[in-house]
Amino acid sequence: MPAAAIILAAGLGTRMRSALPKALHPVAGRPMLNHLIAACEQVFARIVVVVGPGMPGLEAAARPHATVVQVERLGTGHAALQAAPLLRGFEGDVAVLYADNPLIPEATLRRLLDRRTEAGLTLLAMRPADPGRYGRVLTDAAGDVARVVEWADADAAERAVGLCNAGVVAAPANDLFRWLEAVRPDNAKGEYYLTDIVALAVAEGRRVVAEEAAEADLAGANSRAELAQLEATLQTRLRAAAMAGGATLVAPETVFFSWDTRLGEDVTVGPNVVFGPGVAVEDGVEIRAFSHLEGCVIRRGAIIGPFARLRPGTEIGAAAHVGNFVELKAALLGEGAKANHLSYLGDAEIGAGANIGAGTITCNYDGVAKHRTRIGAGAFIGSDAALVAPVSIGDRALVAAGSVITEDVPADAMAVARGRQVVKPGRGFRGKQGRPPTPPKGAN
Amino acid sequence: MPAAAIILAAGLGTRMRSALPKALHPVAGRPMLNHLIAACEQVFARIVVVVGPGMPGLEAAARPHATVVQVERLGTGHAALQAAPLLRGFEGDVAVLYADNPLIPEATLRRLLDRRTEAGLTLLAMRPADPGRYGRVLTDAAGDVARVVEWADADAAERAVGLCNAGVVAAPANDLFRWLEAVRPDNAKGEYYLTDIVALAVAEGRRVVAEEAAEADLAGANSRAELAQLEATLQTRLRAAAMAGGATLVAPETVFFSWDTRLGEDVTVGPNVVFGPGVAVEDGVEIRAFSHLEGCVIRRGAIIGPFARLRPGTEIGAAAHVGNFVELKAALLGEGAKANHLSYLGDAEIGAGANIGAGTITCNYDGVAKHRTRIGAGAFIGSDAALVAPVSIGDRALVAAGSVITEDVPADAMAVARGRQVVKPGRGFRGKQGRPPTPPKGAN
Amino acid sequence: MPAAAIILAAGLGTRMRSALPKALHPVAGRPMLNHLIAACEQVFARIVVVVGPGMPGLEAAARPHATVVQVERLGTGHAALQAAPLLRGFEGDVAVLYADNPLIPEATLRRLLDRRTEAGLTLLAMRPADPGRYGRVLTDAAGDVARVVEWADADAAERAVGLCNAGVVAAPANDLFRWLEAVRPDNAKGEYYLTDIVALAVAEGRRVVAEEAAEADLAGANSRAELAQLEATLQTRLRAAAMAGGATLVAPETVFFSWDTRLGEDVTVGPNVVFGPGVAVEDGVEIRAFSHLEGCVIRRGAIIGPFARLRPGTEIGAAAHVGNFVELKAALLGEGAKANHLSYLGDAEIGAGANIGAGTITCNYDGVAKHRTRIGAGAFIGSDAALVAPVSIGDRALVAAGSVITEDVPADAMAVARGRQVVKPGRGFRGKQGRPPTPPKGAN
Repeated sequence: MPAAAIILAAGLGTRMRSALPKALHPVAGRPMLNHLIAACEQVFARIVVVVGPGMPGLEAAARPHATVVQVERLGTGHAALQAAPLLRGFEGDVAVLYADNPLIPEATLRRLLDRRTEAGLTLLAMRPADPGRYGRVLTDAAGDVARVVEWADADAAERAVGLCNAGVVAAPANDLFRWLEAVRPDNAKGEYYLTDIVALAVAEGRRVVAEEAAEADLAGANSRAELAQLEATLQTRLRAAAMAGGATLVAPETVFFSWDTRLGEDVTVGPNVVFGPGVAVEDGVEIRAFSHLEGCVIRRGAIIGPFARLRPGTEIGAAAHVGNFVELKAALLGEGAKANHLSYLGDAEIGAGANIGAGTITCNYDGVAKHRTRIGAGAFIGSDAALVAPVSIGDRALVAAGSVITEDVPADAMAVARGRQVVKPGRGFRGKQGRPPTPPKGAN
Repeated sequence: MPAAAIILAAGLGTRMRSALPKALHPVAGRPMLNHLIAACEQVFARIVVVVGPGMPGLEAAARPHATVVQVERLGTGHAALQAAPLLRGFEGDVAVLYADNPLIPEATLRRLLDRRTEAGLTLLAMRPADPGRYGRVLTDAAGDVARVVEWADADAAERAVGLCNAGVVAAPANDLFRWLEAVRPDNAKGEYYLTDIVALAVAEGRRVVAEEAAEADLAGANSRAELAQLEATLQTRLRAAAMAGGATLVAPETVFFSWDTRLGEDVTVGPNVVFGPGVAVEDGVEIRAFSHLEGCVIRRGAIIGPFARLRPGTEIGAAAHVGNFVELKAALLGEGAKANHLSYLGDAEIGAGANIGAGTITCNYDGVAKHRTRIGAGAFIGSDAALVAPVSIGDRALVAAGSVITEDVPADAMAVARGRQVVKPGRGFRGKQGRPPTPPKGAN
Repeated sequence: MPAAAIILAAGLGTRMRSALPKALHPVAGRPMLNHLIAACEQVFARIVVVVGPGMPGLEAAARPHATVVQVERLGTGHAALQAAPLLRGFEGDVAVLYADNPLIPEATLRRLLDRRTEAGLTLLAMRPADPGRYGRVLTDAAGDVARVVEWADADAAERAVGLCNAGVVAAPANDLFRWLEAVRPDNAKGEYYLTDIVALAVAEGRRVVAEEAAEADLAGANSRAELAQLEATLQTRLRAAAMAGGATLVAPETVFFSWDTRLGEDVTVGPNVVFGPGVAVEDGVEIRAFSHLEGCVIRRGAIIGPFARLRPGTEIGAAAHVGNFVELKAALLGEGAKANHLSYLGDAEIGAGANIGAGTITCNYDGVAKHRTRIGAGAFIGSDAALVAPVSIGDRALVAAGSVITEDVPADAMAVARGRQVVKPGRGFRGKQGRPPTPPKGAN
């Protein structure tokens, strides 16, 4: 039977000290909420996200899934109950999850549901290296859950128990909501605690079982330091996966992936490379140190960097080269083409085998709109050229070094657009001994 | 009563293999000596720094505090005694500290002095993870210090003691100097050891107490490797403080702060960012990967990098953008202005909302002096422009791409300064099959 | 008596998922095989490398040492035996080593041979932190090796032994090959195992001894993750050596050395610096963050970076400066010369004290051949200049900002080559409110 997930995302995350809702803070380039939703979409037929008031960003991030606003902040049990109207009549199991658990694996969610065949209520538990102030899960002789005790209420023997409550539960919809309505705020904070449904289930004689999961899989983030720790955990996994897939990471700890980075075999990634979302790299590509890539495709055998910046909409052709201090945006660099030094290529199509000289700039913006530059196959753009778009350079055309090109250049033609050289003897540089007669003005 | 600090900074640091005095080696962008002086200034009314002969850099770094030269190197006791003439008549407590203990917290110094109400001599002790060859602090039944024994002189039982001597002491000025004068160099090295005053105080029936401090707070640097460890310890603290203050550090271990970096809330810092001294960042700023900042102010909501270099004297206005391979030096980038690609902006004022095209260069230096460039609000500088300073571009003025501007451009005017384009059909690029008729000269 | 080494390099390294033979994967910029060969060359008079079929890259890397192809893959014993024809008549000791043990120190190899005076067969053993599935070395009461037992065949008591077989052996040539010929493939995989010679030696009543070595020194790489671990181990050693030699590494864990990097004293290396092969740095040099260097010499007191790229064939003179977003290739930057901003200097000689303005580009390539640029001592190249090679700028010559220089400039002369400035009042930038009359075209 299909199951549903309620994701609690209303947390303010006060310790984050952020105007951004906690669940929207990204990990490996994707908001925590969306990591969890992606896992849930593999397991649950329906997903309802409980948000706080005034969090339009959360509602947008949750789409197309339904959201419901928890207007008053009365605890986790109260939050979960807000989803009841949206799940009215739903007959399957319902799990309650937390938006700041972005690393919880799909398999763990499945196990939580699978255990429901044995019990009326299942919950996720873990054995943290430092159990600290987690609530403890107390089991009976048969190993079933007898009680969950909050750390503050636990005696020494109970605190010595290593099995801790992760707060995630699953139960049939009608039981879950019935129990949630029965929860009372009779505690120090006056809140409705989700965990209290365990006692209600036990009181009804229902079997409750705890499914154990790895601590790292259940990690959450209540502070920026914990967020950094989540990021580190996920990066370690992404790096290991990249290496297992046949990529060499010279210094894995200095490579930062996006959740969706795809690398082929025999890809080599140097130290200090950052991948933003949407990068696909084919086999045999070399990405050198200090490169920054997002939203781009790199075809087999290309060489990128060091110090290359590839921005969204870029495609680098097979065996093409992008060198240092070169930026491409919405640009296609053809097969075997080269742009190796200090260039900006934006909104451009560059043909196969073309050579883009050092310092080439596509002038793609007139302050109002962007315009395209087309460079033909086998063209040669001399160094320090400015190509004022919209402009087209034909196949095998040649642009002389230092030219500012404002009109199309036909195929097989040469274009020159620069000043004439004048030499004035005896007017060289005298430095600080004597000011030069005509200040030449350089830079420093 | 006010207290004084004697800072021993004469150490040669032979194992550093450096021409720079050990105490001047920097940690988080500030010499070790100055870290310690800064903490001392919060606690001590007077500070005297003992330097070695021929260390003018140390004297300059110690200013405005007094320095005294230890001409002969006869040990720590002898070094501390050199400060006596400068503290003649001083009636408060005097502490003796080491210039290569840059991480010692102000609170620890206060505790050292506070304990003086109980005892005639106080010293700092620690319990290192590896006590190694530290001198051991032996206490009596009451917990008072009975003796400090050097590792070389200690028997097995004494070496098993975990409490180690950090070498830092405090005592009333007249006692301290009286004891120092009584110290004798009757040891293998023939040196006067500061630690020997403990035995002298005990012999006089004075109570001696050890104040315990954390090992990391007392860490010193006798080698470059230990210096790197000090740096790592301090960086870890600075990163934790930044995150606790509401900044996201995507990969904290790759962000390097200066001791004085200030970050607002909701600042995001990408991987691989280096802060030199004197950087202040307001709320909501995003600093992307591979950025290098020093001596600059970044106003709220600005976006910096990746691959941005901000040098001293730079101010980035609110919501302004600085992009890749862009350097600013002594430049003001107005609110909402953009300089996103491959530019050098030095000694410049750029008005609000101005757009600086790719490859723009302010030619600020004529080999003798620097000159200023002024760009008005709402101006549009076309790509690949060179602005030869001193020069002024008016509000809403427009500079055509590829122009070399040598004269002022009035507000609302357009300036063009570039060569005319000439096209020569049939003289395109033939590559290695046949040399082109006129070698066009690019770059590779 | 001279000894010989057989290096087994035929492994496919299936888990690497690579088209490159495993032994050619680099560590600190040098193939694993060549690390091992370099150590062997200090110890062994002859070296034979056993490769697999179709691995021409391995044969080239092994040169001038002999290679032999193991056509069938029948195990380590079979592989070692392939070297027999090349060592026919050799009378000294022969050691068998593995190409993916690049960190094995010369001293360990010497100890392996030295122990041969005591025994008929020596082998290397280690005590790994996690012995896992290594074969165990079982010793008799005298400490001699009684047996090597594979993990699969070991009982619980044998598995509890911490001494593990590293697979490296040494024996007199005639014994070794005789034993190798006696090895039978009577095991699950039907392979000839090198290790089986231990039992044969013991059966002949020969003494077998195990020389212990550090686990890290014997580490191998069967996967990209293990390769990254080897790299990390070697980098840690190279960093420690650099610091012990008197270099400050602000953040050692972010500096990546080549195996052959040479640094002088009082060199400071900022965070995030990558050294390719062939870099020598003299005393007192400062290499700032985000620099990438290969194949270059940096003379004393020079300052490099941040964001500098030095490519092969570059020499930076004493006290010269290379700044941000500057690339040099096959270029000599004279003593005290400066190239501080956004420049490409390729195939160039730049005289002492010359000043290279921001955005300077040497146009060294015409699509067919490279040409040289010569800049004289004390010359001043204004910003945004393009120097079209072959071209020569004389001593103390001055190139005006924004010029495209195509002809030689004599000493003490000034050259200007740029368009005239035209100003058109009232035709400034109107932005999105109204399109500008003449689209000026910048970049974004």
